[in-house]
Amino acid sequence: MTIGPIIDTHPKPTSLDREALVRCIDECIACGATCTGCADACLAEPDLADMVRCIRRCLDCSDICAATARVVTRQTEVELAVLRALVETCAAACRACGDECQRHASHHEHCRLCAEECRRCQQACEALLAAIG
Amino acid sequence: MTIGPIIDTHPKPTSLDREALVRCIDECIACGATCTGCADACLAEPDLADMVRCIRRCLDCSDICAATARVVTRQTEVELAVLRALVETCAAACRACGDECQRHASHHEHCRLCAEECRRCQQACEALLAAIG
Amino acid sequence: MTIGPIIDTHPKPTSLDREALVRCIDECIACGATCTGCADACLAEPDLADMVRCIRRCLDCSDICAATARVVTRQTEVELAVLRALVETCAAACRACGDECQRHASHHEHCRLCAEECRRCQQACEALLAAIG
Amino acid sequence: MTIGPIIDTHPKPTSLDREALVRCIDECIACGATCTGCADACLAEPDLADMVRCIRRCLDCSDICAATARVVTRQTEVELAVLRALVETCAAACRACGDECQRHASHHEHCRLCAEECRRCQQACEALLAAIG
Repeated sequence: MTIGPIIDTHPKPTSLDREALVRCIDECIACGATCTGCADACLAEPDLADMVRCIRRCLDCSDICAATARVVTRQTEVELAVLRALVETCAAACRACGDECQRHASHHEHCRLCAEECRRCQQACEALLAAIG
Repeated sequence: MTIGPIIDTHPKPTSLDREALVRCIDECIACGATCTGCADACLAEPDLADMVRCIRRCLDCSDICAATARVVTRQTEVELAVLRALVETCAAACRACGDECQRHASHHEHCRLCAEECRRCQQACEALLAAIG
Repeated sequence: MTIGPIIDTHPKPTSLDREALVRCIDECIACGATCTGCADACLAEPDLADMVRCIRRCLDCSDICAATARVVTRQTEVELAVLRALVETCAAACRACGDECQRHASHHEHCRLCAEECRRCQQACEALLAAIG
Repeated sequence: MTIGPIIDTHPKPTSLDREALVRCIDECIACGATCTGCADACLAEPDLADMVRCIRRCLDCSDICAATARVVTRQTEVELAVLRALVETCAAACRACGDECQRHASHHEHCRLCAEECRRCQQACEALLAAIG
């Protein structure tokens, strides 16, 4: 799944770099979904007490990625200041969640996958910010 | 992007059919994102006054698909009655949105793409319901 | 906070019963917020292992209430079949979450408050369904 | 409705200022709901073409407020850097949306109410940021 084809049909596209925009949206969608899944898998782990911080980071990252995906998808009447602040926040949430998931990556495969996805999303957010300038 | 790998790492997977489950989640994620994009593209069309119903259907479908994707992703302590009611609601929302988008498919490419995605998501929801029994 | 004043300013209000509509939206908003808080408080309880089902019910109920609040708030071009299915689903989610929270009401005050809110929201959803007919 | 009672029952409350925290959450919940209502009312106005930017600002503000309300509600294992970035983003989204709604306040009562709510939410976000330091 990629948001690319829908973005390409917008009647008044923004001047933002198309590849950076699409990649950021795609990764926010993937990261939001992955974090929902990781939080739920953590909830069923035998070492649940050690997973509390990871669950909290995943719930936050999922909510922030979902909101970011929606806002960045919208091309109509873009407000760059809000877009930039939100994408920066999303990068920070992905960093915090990825760091915590990484701590559990060796014993929980969902945390390993989630840490990887958080890194990809963080980088896609940073690449969009660099493209905005 | 597919939620499959994360679903496969859950420590206590449900007995629900794995393919139907993953397909339903993937399509809900794709349809929620597509509807956000279609509502926004409609908002920038010259024939905006004719797109009001389409925007409304897309906003609803996006919200319902996003909630459905999250709930169906969660494998821990599943409550089948709620899951079934929500997936049925999602199928109904996709049908209503797909029907409306189809009416604009010949003159707005985003509506054509969105109508197709709504059909796929509706079918994936129905297939999961059939698998649940 | 009540959505009433905003609902009253809609240029093309629906024929739905105004009091039932506003009450349903207000309770969905309150219940969505309460369930987010209860899930988070459960996550910090010493008897965390006993709260897993409660956390899962609260996360689902929060997502479903939030989506329902948005869809029911929208008065433009209402599609009654989707509205009805969603409000029924929301009532079911509130019942499931309220039942589980009630089991912990004697030892966790947030669960007692959340069970009460889930009951109010369930009743508000059922009252709106009765008003729709 | 206020999140206060649920926040007060958290077993491990944060050291954040309780009044500033509760006010920020309450206003984010109210603003998210109000913006959903305003976007929908705008969609039904006869001067729809003039309301496109307002609809877009309201949709963004609603998504960002909803995510912020959830993240700020969570008291377990708080990550201050993410919290601060998100609350700053929310204040920016409320400012942008309130400014646009204010432009239509004299001819659309929902825009007047929404502009007021956006100001209250912006101030509540800024007050929480000041309390965090």
